[in-house]
Amino acid sequence: MTFDVFTLGESMVRFTPPGYTRLEEAAQLEMRIGGTESNVAIALCRLGLRVAWASRMPRNPLGEFVVRRIRSFGVDVSQVCWAEGERMGLYFIEPGAPPRSSLVLYDRANSAASRMRPEDFDWSILDEAQHLHLTGITPAVGDAARATVAHAIREAKARGRTVSFDVNYRARLWSPEAAAETLTPLLADLDLLVCTREDASNVFGVDGEPEAVARGLGERTAAPWIAVTLGGEGAFLWNRAPGAAAEFSRAEALPLHAVDRVGAGDAFDAGLLWGWLRGEPERGLQYGMVMAALKHTIPGDEFVSSLAEVEAVIRSGHRDIQR
Amino acid sequence: MTFDVFTLGESMVRFTPPGYTRLEEAAQLEMRIGGTESNVAIALCRLGLRVAWASRMPRNPLGEFVVRRIRSFGVDVSQVCWAEGERMGLYFIEPGAPPRSSLVLYDRANSAASRMRPEDFDWSILDEAQHLHLTGITPAVGDAARATVAHAIREAKARGRTVSFDVNYRARLWSPEAAAETLTPLLADLDLLVCTREDASNVFGVDGEPEAVARGLGERTAAPWIAVTLGGEGAFLWNRAPGAAAEFSRAEALPLHAVDRVGAGDAFDAGLLWGWLRGEPERGLQYGMVMAALKHTIPGDEFVSSLAEVEAVIRSGHRDIQR
Amino acid sequence: MTFDVFTLGESMVRFTPPGYTRLEEAAQLEMRIGGTESNVAIALCRLGLRVAWASRMPRNPLGEFVVRRIRSFGVDVSQVCWAEGERMGLYFIEPGAPPRSSLVLYDRANSAASRMRPEDFDWSILDEAQHLHLTGITPAVGDAARATVAHAIREAKARGRTVSFDVNYRARLWSPEAAAETLTPLLADLDLLVCTREDASNVFGVDGEPEAVARGLGERTAAPWIAVTLGGEGAFLWNRAPGAAAEFSRAEALPLHAVDRVGAGDAFDAGLLWGWLRGEPERGLQYGMVMAALKHTIPGDEFVSSLAEVEAVIRSGHRDIQR
Amino acid sequence: MTFDVFTLGESMVRFTPPGYTRLEEAAQLEMRIGGTESNVAIALCRLGLRVAWASRMPRNPLGEFVVRRIRSFGVDVSQVCWAEGERMGLYFIEPGAPPRSSLVLYDRANSAASRMRPEDFDWSILDEAQHLHLTGITPAVGDAARATVAHAIREAKARGRTVSFDVNYRARLWSPEAAAETLTPLLADLDLLVCTREDASNVFGVDGEPEAVARGLGERTAAPWIAVTLGGEGAFLWNRAPGAAAEFSRAEALPLHAVDRVGAGDAFDAGLLWGWLRGEPERGLQYGMVMAALKHTIPGDEFVSSLAEVEAVIRSGHRDIQR
Amino acid sequence: MTFDVFTLGESMVRFTPPGYTRLEEAAQLEMRIGGTESNVAIALCRLGLRVAWASRMPRNPLGEFVVRRIRSFGVDVSQVCWAEGERMGLYFIEPGAPPRSSLVLYDRANSAASRMRPEDFDWSILDEAQHLHLTGITPAVGDAARATVAHAIREAKARGRTVSFDVNYRARLWSPEAAAETLTPLLADLDLLVCTREDASNVFGVDGEPEAVARGLGERTAAPWIAVTLGGEGAFLWNRAPGAAAEFSRAEALPLHAVDRVGAGDAFDAGLLWGWLRGEPERGLQYGMVMAALKHTIPGDEFVSSLAEVEAVIRSGHRDIQR
Amino acid sequence: MTFDVFTLGESMVRFTPPGYTRLEEAAQLEMRIGGTESNVAIALCRLGLRVAWASRMPRNPLGEFVVRRIRSFGVDVSQVCWAEGERMGLYFIEPGAPPRSSLVLYDRANSAASRMRPEDFDWSILDEAQHLHLTGITPAVGDAARATVAHAIREAKARGRTVSFDVNYRARLWSPEAAAETLTPLLADLDLLVCTREDASNVFGVDGEPEAVARGLGERTAAPWIAVTLGGEGAFLWNRAPGAAAEFSRAEALPLHAVDRVGAGDAFDAGLLWGWLRGEPERGLQYGMVMAALKHTIPGDEFVSSLAEVEAVIRSGHRDIQR
Repeated sequence: MTFDVFTLGESMVRFTPPGYTRLEEAAQLEMRIGGTESNVAIALCRLGLRVAWASRMPRNPLGEFVVRRIRSFGVDVSQVCWAEGERMGLYFIEPGAPPRSSLVLYDRANSAASRMRPEDFDWSILDEAQHLHLTGITPAVGDAARATVAHAIREAKARGRTVSFDVNYRARLWSPEAAAETLTPLLADLDLLVCTREDASNVFGVDGEPEAVARGLGERTAAPWIAVTLGGEGAFLWNRAPGAAAEFSRAEALPLHAVDRVGAGDAFDAGLLWGWLRGEPERGLQYGMVMAALKHTIPGDEFVSSLAEVEAVIRSGHRDIQR
Repeated sequence: MTFDVFTLGESMVRFTPPGYTRLEEAAQLEMRIGGTESNVAIALCRLGLRVAWASRMPRNPLGEFVVRRIRSFGVDVSQVCWAEGERMGLYFIEPGAPPRSSLVLYDRANSAASRMRPEDFDWSILDEAQHLHLTGITPAVGDAARATVAHAIREAKARGRTVSFDVNYRARLWSPEAAAETLTPLLADLDLLVCTREDASNVFGVDGEPEAVARGLGERTAAPWIAVTLGGEGAFLWNRAPGAAAEFSRAEALPLHAVDRVGAGDAFDAGLLWGWLRGEPERGLQYGMVMAALKHTIPGDEFVSSLAEVEAVIRSGHRDIQR
Repeated sequence: MTFDVFTLGESMVRFTPPGYTRLEEAAQLEMRIGGTESNVAIALCRLGLRVAWASRMPRNPLGEFVVRRIRSFGVDVSQVCWAEGERMGLYFIEPGAPPRSSLVLYDRANSAASRMRPEDFDWSILDEAQHLHLTGITPAVGDAARATVAHAIREAKARGRTVSFDVNYRARLWSPEAAAETLTPLLADLDLLVCTREDASNVFGVDGEPEAVARGLGERTAAPWIAVTLGGEGAFLWNRAPGAAAEFSRAEALPLHAVDRVGAGDAFDAGLLWGWLRGEPERGLQYGMVMAALKHTIPGDEFVSSLAEVEAVIRSGHRDIQR
Repeated sequence: MTFDVFTLGESMVRFTPPGYTRLEEAAQLEMRIGGTESNVAIALCRLGLRVAWASRMPRNPLGEFVVRRIRSFGVDVSQVCWAEGERMGLYFIEPGAPPRSSLVLYDRANSAASRMRPEDFDWSILDEAQHLHLTGITPAVGDAARATVAHAIREAKARGRTVSFDVNYRARLWSPEAAAETLTPLLADLDLLVCTREDASNVFGVDGEPEAVARGLGERTAAPWIAVTLGGEGAFLWNRAPGAAAEFSRAEALPLHAVDRVGAGDAFDAGLLWGWLRGEPERGLQYGMVMAALKHTIPGDEFVSSLAEVEAVIRSGHRDIQR
Repeated sequence: MTFDVFTLGESMVRFTPPGYTRLEEAAQLEMRIGGTESNVAIALCRLGLRVAWASRMPRNPLGEFVVRRIRSFGVDVSQVCWAEGERMGLYFIEPGAPPRSSLVLYDRANSAASRMRPEDFDWSILDEAQHLHLTGITPAVGDAARATVAHAIREAKARGRTVSFDVNYRARLWSPEAAAETLTPLLADLDLLVCTREDASNVFGVDGEPEAVARGLGERTAAPWIAVTLGGEGAFLWNRAPGAAAEFSRAEALPLHAVDRVGAGDAFDAGLLWGWLRGEPERGLQYGMVMAALKHTIPGDEFVSSLAEVEAVIRSGHRDIQR
Repeated sequence: MTFDVFTLGESMVRFTPPGYTRLEEAAQLEMRIGGTESNVAIALCRLGLRVAWASRMPRNPLGEFVVRRIRSFGVDVSQVCWAEGERMGLYFIEPGAPPRSSLVLYDRANSAASRMRPEDFDWSILDEAQHLHLTGITPAVGDAARATVAHAIREAKARGRTVSFDVNYRARLWSPEAAAETLTPLLADLDLLVCTREDASNVFGVDGEPEAVARGLGERTAAPWIAVTLGGEGAFLWNRAPGAAAEFSRAEALPLHAVDRVGAGDAFDAGLLWGWLRGEPERGLQYGMVMAALKHTIPGDEFVSSLAEVEAVIRSGHRDIQR
C-alpha cells in the first residue's frame, strides 16, 4: 500500500500575536496553520509513516500557504480539492498567562473546507491506505462536511480499512446536544476511539473514573480500543478486543514547560495511532504522552519533532543542553 | 454644530506581509486597518476638522482593534453599532514591484459592516454635523448597506446638509453594470462628486478629456461640483455652481516615492473636502493633490500627516533632512 | 455629568528592550507609554466609566504618540495642554529575571509635564466630573506640578467633588523626607487614600500589621476610606466612614505568571475606585486584586482587559484555552 | 512518465542580513535556501511540471530545513541521499545598493553536497523522467560531484533522455581555466546549453554579438539549442536543429524594480526549459525573460510566482494595485 | 605617536522608526548612535588610522551603549569622562520619502556631553596625537562645550598639532547669527576647514561659485586648506598653502541609492582628512566623495566600510553581485 | 603590567532561532558570538580587570563581527591573527524547554581558529600579562590548536606567570578517552584548575563527593587550587597551597530563572579568577556563583553585567523592580 494513514478535515490559517500581546493591539501577527487532522498527519510523518491528507481549500495565496506547509512535512496532498473564489478558514489565538485564559477566535464560517462534499475526493485513495483517521470537528463545521465524514467511514469500511476517531468537542462550534446527536451514529463502527474525559462528560454525559468513562463511551461504539485522555493526569486505554492480554493500561503525563498548548492532543493521537498500527497500543499510549509533552514546547500546532527525540526523552529525560 | 463631517462605511483589518514577501509564504503579517470612509475621516481630523464615523462592528478583539485605531486620531466613534457574534471584514494586500502588480485579497463577505442597516444608527447625529461623506464601496458590500447609504442621503438632505460622494469602483466586489445600476440613483442629489477617470469610463461609459468626463458625469448628478482624478496626471474640478468665477480648475500630481499607495485617493478626498467646506474648492484641489502624494510615503491606509506638513510641502517642496 | 472621573499627571514614552536583552546592547526598543494617572484612566474606561485625563504635553511626534494611545482607549484628552518646544518625559525599563532586578531609568527631568501649571487647564471640567484622582508622583516632578495638584484638590473640593489619591512613592524621584513634607498637606482633605505598606513605612514611618498601617495613615488624612496594598499578600481597606457596616476588609492576591509588573498598582486603584464610586468599596477591593493580577499578564503599563474578563476570572478562575 | 524533469546539485542555507545592514553588524539573519538546480526545479513546479531534485544532504536540522522548503513547492525529494555527520553548505549574501556591490560569502567547502557521488543515487529515476537539467556549479564544488555530473549525463543519454546545462560560472569557486577544462567534455552531448555572454567570454574566450557568442559556444557542444543571456539586454536563442524554421530569436528584458536579484537566471532557465519541453522554445525564451523579471521582485532565491502571473504580465504589464 | 587623530564632541543615542513608519505611531525604534565627531573617528579607523575620541558620557546603560559601539570599531575611548546622574543626549530621526522630508527631533538639552568642560579631559593626550578634529556642533550645545572646543584648539596648537574643523551648522540648535558669532574666533587658527556651500551662505553670508565661496571663507580663517561641499554636485578644495601645485581641485559626487543619508558628510571629512594627513589632499577629496556615497548605502550614522571597498568602487564602480 | 589576564581560544558566530522555534523551521536566526575564553575575558573586563584575548580569525565579515563584539567590551584584541580565505567556526543552538533538551549543532571543523599555531601570536604579550587562562576546548579542535595551548603554558611558566585551566569537556568534539589522553599532560603545571563534577567523572573517572573529586583531580595536576562545580548544587574549592587557612570552601547556587544557560560556567570562572587574582579565592568562589546565576538571566554567551550588580545581588537579593 502507498499510505499507512489517510485523513481529512479542515485546516486553517492560524494567527497569533507575539508574546502575550493582546489581539486588540497587536501590530503584527504570526501566521501559521492549524487543523487537528493535518496536525495528526504531520506528526505521523515525523514518526516515519506515509500519510495523505485531504481537504477543500480555496485557490488563493492562503490556500497555498496552508497546503505548502503541510506538504513540507512530507504529507501527501494530492487529494486536496481546490475551490475557486471561496474563503480560507481562519483562527486567532491570544495566548494568556494565569489568571488570564488563552482565547481562541474562530473565523471559519463559510470556509471552503466547511463546504467539503463527498464528491470532492477520489475515494479510491482508500484502496491504497491502510487506515482512516477522522475527528469530531469536521461534522461540526457544516452539513456537507458531516456527510463527507459519514461517507469516508463507509468507503473505508467497505474496503476493510480500520478507522480511528477523536471526538474533539469544540464549544465555540456547536452545543453538546448537537454534538451528541451528530456524533453518535458516526461512532458506531470504529476501531479506535479517543475522547477527553471532559468531552465524555459534556457531550455524552459519561462521568467518573477513567475506566467508567471508557466503559460509558463503549456503550456508544463498537470500537475495541477506547482511549480517554485526562489532561495533566495522563491517558488511559481500554482494550476490549477479544483475547486482549492487558485490558486496561495507563500512561502518566510528563512534567513540562508549556510554550504552546495547541496540538498536544493531536500529537497524542499520532503517538497512540503509531503504536496501535504496529500492534503495540500500550507503547503507542506511552509515546503519545511523550509526544503531547514535547508538543507543548514547540510553537505552532505541529509536532516538529521526531521519533528519535521521543525515544531520547523516554531514555534520558530532559537535559539542559546537549553539546 | 458638534461635527464638521459625518461619514459611515466599512472598515476592515488589513494584513500586509513584510517587505515584498509573498502572502503564501509570510511568517508574519502586519496588522493595520483600512476603509475608505474612515481614511477620509482620519485625514480630515489631521487637518483640524471635527469628524464622526459610524459603522457596524463585531464586538470582539478585531472590532476593538479597528475602532481603537480610528478613535486614536480623534475621530468620534460613539455612533458605532456593536454586533455580537458577527465577523470582521478583512483584507490582505501583497505589495508588488514592477513588473509584479500589488494584489488585494478581500475576505469581507458576511462581515458585520456589510450588514449595516439604517436602524443601526441614530440619525439625529446629522442634526449636529454640517456635512455627510459617502462612497460607492458601501453599496457594493450588501443590500442592507446599500439601503443604509440611500437612507443616509435622505436623512442628510432632509436636514439641509451637504453631501459628498466618491464613486470608488472596486472590480473585486461587483461588475461595472451592477455598480452603474446601483449608484446612479444615489448620485442624483449630491453636492460634490468625486470619480477617477478610469471609473468614469468603466462604470458610466464616460470617456475623453477631463472636461468631457466631468460633463459626462454631470449628466448623472445634480452636484454643482464634480472632481475627476487622473492618477499621475493630477486632478480636475468642474464648478458649475451658479455664479462660479472659474469654472474649471486643475492641479498637478507631485513627484513622489511610493511606499504605500493605498489610501491616496482618500487623502485627496479629504483635502478637497477641507477646501470645499471652507468655500475654497480650488485650494482644496491643490491640498488634495499634496495629501495624496504625502500619503504615498506613509505605510498603511491612513494619512498620518498634518496641515502643517501639507503646507510645508507647498511652501518648500521636499528636503532631504530637516535638522 | 459628562465624566465619572477626571485625573491629571505625567505620562511618558516608555522604552523596553525585547526579551531579557540588556538596555546597553539592545538593537531596538519597544515604544509604549506609561504614567500612573493615565493608567488608571484607561483601566476605568475599560470598566465602562467615562474618564478625562489632562497633562502638559510637548507638541511633537512623541506627544502625539502618547496622547493618541490614551485617546484610543476612549479617555477624553481635550484638556491636554500642548507646549511648543518642550520635551517629552521618557523612561526606560530593563526587565530582569531572578536574581537580576528589573531596572527603571528615568529621563523625565524638565519634561513638559513636569512643568504643568494650574493655569494650563480649564478647571470648569470639574463642573462635569464626579470625582478627581491624583497621585504622589506629580508633586515629585516639579514645583509647578506640585502646585497644580494642590490647586486641583481645591478646585474639586470647592465643587463638592470627591478625591482619591495614591501615594506612589518613587525613590528615584525624591527622598522619603521630601515626599513626606510635600505630601502631608495634600492628604488632609481626601476621600480615599491608597498607599503600599512599603511606602507607608518608608515615607511616613508607619509600620506593622495592615490595620495598624491604615490607622497610622489615618492620622495624616481625614479620608474616610484608606486602602493599604500588601504586594503578594493582597490588599486591605479601612472604612471609617460614619455608619460603616464592616470596618475592615481584605482581599487576597491571585496566583499569577508575571509578564509585565508595571501598572499593576494602577489597575488595582481603578478596580477599587470603580467599586467605591458605585458604593461598593469591598467589591472594588476584590476587583482591584483581580485587575492587578490580570495586568501582570499584559505587556505594557495599561490594563488592556475588560469588566467581562475580570468577572470571568472571579467566576471561573484560569483556564488554559477557551475554544 | 512520472517526472517531466530530474535535476541534481547543491542547495545551501542562505543567510541574509535585514535591509541593507552589513553582515559584520547584523543582529539577526534571514534564513532561506539557495541552489541553482533546486531553484530551477521549484520554478518548473510553479509552471505546472512534475519535477524531482536530488542532492546529498546532512541529516541534521539544516538539512531538514532545506529539504522541507524544496518539498513545500511540490518538488519530489525522495532521491535525496542523507549523510550522517556531514555539514550543510552555507552562503551569506549582503545586499548592496549603488555604488556598493552586493557581496556573496560562500561557506560551502566540505559540504555534504560537495561530496555527492554517483552511487548516492538510484539512477533508475531516469527511467521515469523525460529530461535532465544540470549546471556548471556542481562540477566546481568537488571531484565526486564532478564525477556525478558526468555520470548523470551518461545515464540520461543511455536512456534517450534530453539534457540541458547552464554554465553558471562562479568566480569564487574556481578559475576560468579550471572551469573551461572541466566543463568542456561535459558540454559535448547536450540538447540545450545556456550561458551568459559574460561567462562565454571569461570561461571560453568567446566574445562579440550574441549570434557570434552562440556560434562560438556551438563549437564546444553538439547541442542543437544554445541560449545566450545578456543581462539587462535580454536573451538570445540559436536553434540549429535540422529543419528549424527561425534560426535566431531574441527576447527583451523587462523594466523592473529589483528586490532580490539572486535566482533570476534560474527562473529564466525554467521558463526557457518549459517552452523547450513543449516544443515552443521561442515562447520559452519570452516566458523566461518575464520570469527573470518577476523573480527580481521576490525575496529569496525561488520563483514564488505562477504561470498565471507570468501570463498576466505578458497580457497586461504592470498595474499598481489589483483590487 | 600613539594616535593619528584625536577628536571630541557629543555622541547621542539615535532612535529610528522602522521603514517609513511615522514616529508618532511606531511600535518599536531601532537604537543606534550618532555624533559627527565619533562618526569621523570611526571612518578614520576603518581606513586604518589610529584614532581617539573623547566626550562626557552619563554612567548608565545608554552611556555604555554609545561607548561600547564606538569602541567596537577600534576607536580609543579611554579619555571619555563618565558623569554620574546626568542624562544622555538623544535624537530621533523619521526617514521620509519625496515629497515628505526626513525629520530630526533632538532631545539633547542638558545632556552630559553638552556640559563637557576643559577639565574633564587629560590634554596630554595631544602629546600622543598628530592631529585634532573638531566641528561646529560642539560649540552649539552649551557654554562649557564651547569653552572646551576653544581650549582644545589652544592645547593642540601649543603642541604644534594640526587642526581640522567642519562648520556643520544645525538650524535646530542655534541661529545663523549666533553660530557666526561663536564660530568666527574658533576658525582663525585652523589647518583645514570644511563647510557646505549652504552653511557658508546661511551662516557667513558667503555665496557664489565654489571658488568664490572658498575665498569668502578664507577671509575668516588662516587655514591653508578649505573644502567646500556641494551636495549632489560634489566637493571642492582650495589649497592656498604656499607652494601648492594645483590650487583648486574638485571631485564629482557618485550616482547612488540612498538608504540612510546621515553621516555622509562625516564620511567625506574622514576621507579628506585621511588624504590630507598623508600629504595627498586631492586624493583625500576623491576618497571622501566615494566614502560619502558608500555611507548613503549603509544604515546608521557610521561608515561601516573599508579602504578596500572604497578602492574597489574607484577601480570597478558598482556591480550587482560579486559571487 | 598592561594586562591582568591573557587568554586565547576559539570564538564562533552563534546562531539562535527566536523563542522556542525549531532550527529546521526558523525564518531568521539571532546572530551572536560564543567562545569560552572570550566569554571569560569579557566577564573579567566587566569586573574591572584589563584583559587581552587572542585567536586566529578569518578576515571576512564574520571575523569582523566576532572581533568587534569582543572589542566592544574593552577586551584587547590586538593579538588576533587574521587569516585570509579561511572559515569562521559557527554554532547553532536550539533552546528547548522540558522535556525537550536544548541542542547544540557545531559547524566548526576546519575553522580558522581550529588551525591556530604557536607562530600566529607574539608571545611577548606574556611579558605584560600577569596571568594566562586556558580551557580544554582548544586542544579538542585541532592538532595545531593543541600545540598552541601547550606552547602558551610553557611561555607563561617561563616568565613566571600563573595559569588557570577549565577542563570544559565537549562530547560533540571528542571522546572522553581522547580528552583524558590529551589533557593530562597539559594539567601538570597549573595554578588553578576548574572542572565540573560531571567532566571529572566522564573524562578522568573521578567520582564521589566534591572533596573526593577534588582530591582525585589533584592527582593529575600540581595546581594548588582546584575548583569543582556542581551545577545546581553550587561549587567547591580545594586550597592545598602550603599554609592555606581554610582548606575547603563551598558556595551555594542561587535560585534563578533561566533565560540562557550558555556561558554560566564561564561567568563562574571569571568570578573565581577575579577573587583568586586578588588573593581572595573564597570570595571569588562566591562571586562566581552569583555571576553564573546572573548570566542565566542574560541572552547570549556573555556576562553583560557588572561588579556593582553582582554586589547588589549579594547585598539585597532579587527585587522585582528598582524605580
